[in-house]
Amino acid sequence: MRRRILASLLLLMSSYGYAVEGMWQPHQLPQLGAQLKELGLKIDPEKLAGLSDFPMNAIVSLGGCSASFVSPKGLVATNHHCVYGSLQYASTPENNVLENGFVASSLEEEVPAAPGSRVYVTEEVTEVTHQVLEGVSDEMSGQARYQQIEDNIKRLIQECEAQGGYRCGVPAYHHGMEYYLVKRLEIRDVRLVYAPPASIGKYGGDIDNWQWPRHTGDFGFYRAYVSPDGKPADYAEENVPYKPANFLRIDASGVKEGDFVMALGYPGRTNRYRTADEVENQFTWFYPNARVIREDLIEVITDSSLPESQARLSYESTIASLANYAKNYRSMVESYGKSDFLQRRQQTEQALTKWIESDADRKMEYGPALHELAQLINTEQAVQARDLILGYMSYAALPTVAESLYRLAVEKQKPDFEREPGYQERDMAQFRQSIQRLSRRFDPQVDKAILQYLLTRYAELPEDQRVDAIDAFYGIDKSTTAEQLQQRIDQLYANTELDQEAARMAWLDRSPEAFRESEDPFIRYAVATHDARMALEEEEEERTGKMQQYRSHYMSAMVDFKRAQNEPVYADANSTLRVTFGTVQGNEPRDGLKNLPFTTLEGILEKNTGEDPFDAPEKQLELIREQTYGPYELESLDSVPVNFLADVDITGGNSGSAIMNGEAQLVGLLFDGVYESIIGDWDFDEEKNRAIAVDARYMLWVMKYVDGAENLLKELTIVE
Amino acid sequence: MRRRILASLLLLMSSYGYAVEGMWQPHQLPQLGAQLKELGLKIDPEKLAGLSDFPMNAIVSLGGCSASFVSPKGLVATNHHCVYGSLQYASTPENNVLENGFVASSLEEEVPAAPGSRVYVTEEVTEVTHQVLEGVSDEMSGQARYQQIEDNIKRLIQECEAQGGYRCGVPAYHHGMEYYLVKRLEIRDVRLVYAPPASIGKYGGDIDNWQWPRHTGDFGFYRAYVSPDGKPADYAEENVPYKPANFLRIDASGVKEGDFVMALGYPGRTNRYRTADEVENQFTWFYPNARVIREDLIEVITDSSLPESQARLSYESTIASLANYAKNYRSMVESYGKSDFLQRRQQTEQALTKWIESDADRKMEYGPALHELAQLINTEQAVQARDLILGYMSYAALPTVAESLYRLAVEKQKPDFEREPGYQERDMAQFRQSIQRLSRRFDPQVDKAILQYLLTRYAELPEDQRVDAIDAFYGIDKSTTAEQLQQRIDQLYANTELDQEAARMAWLDRSPEAFRESEDPFIRYAVATHDARMALEEEEEERTGKMQQYRSHYMSAMVDFKRAQNEPVYADANSTLRVTFGTVQGNEPRDGLKNLPFTTLEGILEKNTGEDPFDAPEKQLELIREQTYGPYELESLDSVPVNFLADVDITGGNSGSAIMNGEAQLVGLLFDGVYESIIGDWDFDEEKNRAIAVDARYMLWVMKYVDGAENLLKELTIVE
Repeated sequence: MRRRILASLLLLMSSYGYAVEGMWQPHQLPQLGAQLKELGLKIDPEKLAGLSDFPMNAIVSLGGCSASFVSPKGLVATNHHCVYGSLQYASTPENNVLENGFVASSLEEEVPAAPGSRVYVTEEVTEVTHQVLEGVSDEMSGQARYQQIEDNIKRLIQECEAQGGYRCGVPAYHHGMEYYLVKRLEIRDVRLVYAPPASIGKYGGDIDNWQWPRHTGDFGFYRAYVSPDGKPADYAEENVPYKPANFLRIDASGVKEGDFVMALGYPGRTNRYRTADEVENQFTWFYPNARVIREDLIEVITDSSLPESQARLSYESTIASLANYAKNYRSMVESYGKSDFLQRRQQTEQALTKWIESDADRKMEYGPALHELAQLINTEQAVQARDLILGYMSYAALPTVAESLYRLAVEKQKPDFEREPGYQERDMAQFRQSIQRLSRRFDPQVDKAILQYLLTRYAELPEDQRVDAIDAFYGIDKSTTAEQLQQRIDQLYANTELDQEAARMAWLDRSPEAFRESEDPFIRYAVATHDARMALEEEEEERTGKMQQYRSHYMSAMVDFKRAQNEPVYADANSTLRVTFGTVQGNEPRDGLKNLPFTTLEGILEKNTGEDPFDAPEKQLELIREQTYGPYELESLDSVPVNFLADVDITGGNSGSAIMNGEAQLVGLLFDGVYESIIGDWDFDEEKNRAIAVDARYMLWVMKYVDGAENLLKELTIVE
Repeated sequence: MRRRILASLLLLMSSYGYAVEGMWQPHQLPQLGAQLKELGLKIDPEKLAGLSDFPMNAIVSLGGCSASFVSPKGLVATNHHCVYGSLQYASTPENNVLENGFVASSLEEEVPAAPGSRVYVTEEVTEVTHQVLEGVSDEMSGQARYQQIEDNIKRLIQECEAQGGYRCGVPAYHHGMEYYLVKRLEIRDVRLVYAPPASIGKYGGDIDNWQWPRHTGDFGFYRAYVSPDGKPADYAEENVPYKPANFLRIDASGVKEGDFVMALGYPGRTNRYRTADEVENQFTWFYPNARVIREDLIEVITDSSLPESQARLSYESTIASLANYAKNYRSMVESYGKSDFLQRRQQTEQALTKWIESDADRKMEYGPALHELAQLINTEQAVQARDLILGYMSYAALPTVAESLYRLAVEKQKPDFEREPGYQERDMAQFRQSIQRLSRRFDPQVDKAILQYLLTRYAELPEDQRVDAIDAFYGIDKSTTAEQLQQRIDQLYANTELDQEAARMAWLDRSPEAFRESEDPFIRYAVATHDARMALEEEEEERTGKMQQYRSHYMSAMVDFKRAQNEPVYADANSTLRVTFGTVQGNEPRDGLKNLPFTTLEGILEKNTGEDPFDAPEKQLELIREQTYGPYELESLDSVPVNFLADVDITGGNSGSAIMNGEAQLVGLLFDGVYESIIGDWDFDEEKNRAIAVDARYMLWVMKYVDGAENLLKELTIVE
């Protein structure tokens, strides 16, 4: 096995002499050890495999973002955009800390992060494929299979979490070919420690998002707190900083072009093994259509809220997220149009088919699954227009919250173990917080406009794709006019109490009967459409169960096929801890143009217009004009590096990942990728793919000179 | 002197070890000889000084564009955008040669270039400062001075042109510190030989204009024809190709990064020696205001003509020129805002003042002129809002043509020598052609809209800056409404005959009395406002005369001052033959980004969207996909170079300039500069300034593989 992977690495060489593609599970790294050492890894590669060893036990997840411990007192370094919600949450009309930045100069000054904020420390990862598939047979219906797997997983999770203070999960690898039980300590008292002003932390804003050259100080710090006896606990004044088993030192002399780096984090999702048919559909149907909805939703929000208003402020992060993925999808479609990705995927598929058919055993083992998978994909695509709109319906907050609340009441009738994941007791803290948090991300006028838009799109679906109960509730038929729909929606919002936090929270503990007797129009909506929505869910479970069956087979075939060709095999990203390595290097994004590996302080001066998002603090501009570099200068640049590029293999979820040098010292935080690398989620191109990191030297420079975060600098362990 | 310049060159070193700033007059080059040889010039530098030697006698002007002879049969290579008007002129509804390209496969197939097209061969340049300033004294009024200089110049020109077939001029160098008589053979029968389709020659269009990376095939060929006895002549069938004394060979192996290049051409105008006050006014008042007018005019034209209509087609080059300079002005203002140009200019001025005041003789010689110049600049600025609008009035074609025609009738009453330049017999051919050419660049609806816009802007001027006669004619006062103005304008256009070519041409030969008796509303306009416009012209002559007096003094001071500091001294560009040298090299336009020195064929594939201006011919795309490079590949690129960058010092008018290697062989044609270098007209920055050239290898590749211009390839002398 080891020899195979090394051989395959030799096949896929980059200009720097190694394969950069791959989001490796820690246990795979010793197999790559010789290669890693040759590239510049100084620590023992075996140590990278141990979750309870340094450095892996310093790498944490925030759920959606990656992060790392950087002090023995539970200090957590991550991206500014990962603490953004907490900065919004901590902002008041008197002190907009999002705008001004936040510096706690003592533990006492640290404030609670946004409700639901978590620090997850992965402690154990155990293969449980056998247990997950116990009682599963290929003859079952898709739904039965789905249910059996879900029950098995729930049982594994229940056992894992019995001890308390842990959050466990059983993610599928290779789309159900393997399952691992991931046991994570769940720290629930998370506090905001430091973030630079948005004019540094979000410098360049949406304009520079996914772009190079970049000058974003995208970093911030949380602190993990536990009860005085060291156990995870809800926020309480007497809680104390968590003592991590290990933490990362910061290398203040940092990296230079060509240096080895590795990024450790929790990449969310990639699609490197989809079928050609799925690829084509995704790039010619899904992304173009989803992009339009996202762009429309942004327009709907900005048209229905005044700039600078409280309403607009509430939707800032929603807009940012909509815009982020609209841009992402646009890049996907552009890159796809310019590339031969589909042809290559088709060729791979043909080669796979040929390889399967060239051997009777293989043909018997994999042949039917491939065929069935193709059929199933067709079935999914037949209802994708409906599923797309229904998926975006969750942007209308009040009907969505009503659905969740009623579902909770219904699920609560069952024993805890039998409830739908998300509605079990283990989920209740997060659930409550999400219902509560809505207040800060919601405005009734905007919500109305969003619902009006989405229902208008929904009403355009062919009648047989619409849902009778939804049509009936909103009065949608062939003759419905926009005015009628608007009147209906006005009526709903005029009479609901769900826009009130207290009213919403009260529903958390009510019985299904109470819902059925309610006059609140959105509660009535939830009740009236519940059965229909459950039927859709069952349909989807049937497909999902079958998908697990066929796709895991397909993946077995693919993995065997790739191994037969000596190609390295790593699983698609699934929000679990992964390691990717490479070097600091630029690239040529277009003919005649080169992205240099570093940007410098002077670039901020150059970009600055004085207007958001290019409005760096005057103090910072002055420091740059004076060439105050301190000990953070990179000699080859004659300046302090701000951001840098590396060819590590990353995706969303990697945000906040520690970028480490060969000594496993922190040299930067990953926060983005270049525009041309977005399609990397599907098709990794070592020429185009570049991750963007904020340089640790810039972080230290901002903390020291701009924000005077002396306490924090003292707490960090900085090596020169 | 020689030692001084060499010493100063050492002071202003680029990364390649020499000063790149400077548009040198050919006679200055032997002084730079040692330096040029060291850099890579292979031919004798002394040869560059001789206008009747190779290579200078192969370098020609098209009036506004530069070009060069590339065959013994008068074949002229220049830019596509320099033959653009001729392609428009040659286009018919049946064959849009602008779109399709034009390939004459024999002399017979060559067609006349647009009326007024010329090839000018500079034969002699003689210093005539003394003659020009004869009879001039500092005590005269500005207007008398202006008149005396104009008369002296007219006399020099008259003598110079006595022989026939020549066009002479007496451009001022250093703003009147020196004058040279330039004697140019004027070839009047110019024919279109070859141009690639616009989808190659204008690839990237306005979007890529002033941008890098660039992939524009901006080249085309004319041929100069003369009468059978070898004299310049109007177009006639029996005319024969002109035999130039010399022509350029083409180096098909071309240049690579770091290679020496020189560009020979006719740069139009730079402002490297303006006062700090003028600089500030230009960048904070003139460019911002002029940009708005240009952008407004584009909107006016596009709002008043349908896309693809004949009207819109007629204004294509007007729109292109408006857009080109709107973008130019925007870049100027942006670069100015980011730079410390003004402070540096102020420092230079302070240093100059200090240097003058530190010496009693210098103080007496230069002190008063500096003071007077500053005053005069203030006087100019006081009326600049009026002058700006009146300047743009020429975009309204019918009033402008009426003004010219009446002026001609008035001037014709005087002996030829006494007439205003532009209205002498020597100007008549060009004059007729410009009146005639209007038909192809004019549409009455658009012209009305332009006049309406400009008069509206004019009406906003303070009353004391407006012109009574113009106000009276158009009925402009405080109470004039847009509707009233429009009615007046509608009336004018409804009743004029000047929109008819025949009617316009008829006025060329009429007496002033005929004008005064005419009922044609625009002729009446010209008559009614003539005296007022002449008064304005006299005012301007007064200022111009004084400006010549003070600015030439200022320049003497500046030149002495710079020489005292060992700084190289070249004159501002003035549309005369200049040489600039440098190397093929990219630059860093922004922090974190590098412009590579070459683009390649593959970049065309990468940019191509199939939609104008990124719609390369399918045949070309196919050739690129097949990697058909032929002998034109640059090994270090693994492809055929398309465009390249060099740090030569250029400006508008340099378009079409031959880029030559050290052997004086043609390696490319200059056609643009990068966006950041636009401010180079005022402030040369060797880091930011890059010229863009079309690579000769790409020209040959297109001719051979895309257009099959075999005849042309045979006619060129290609060295490997």
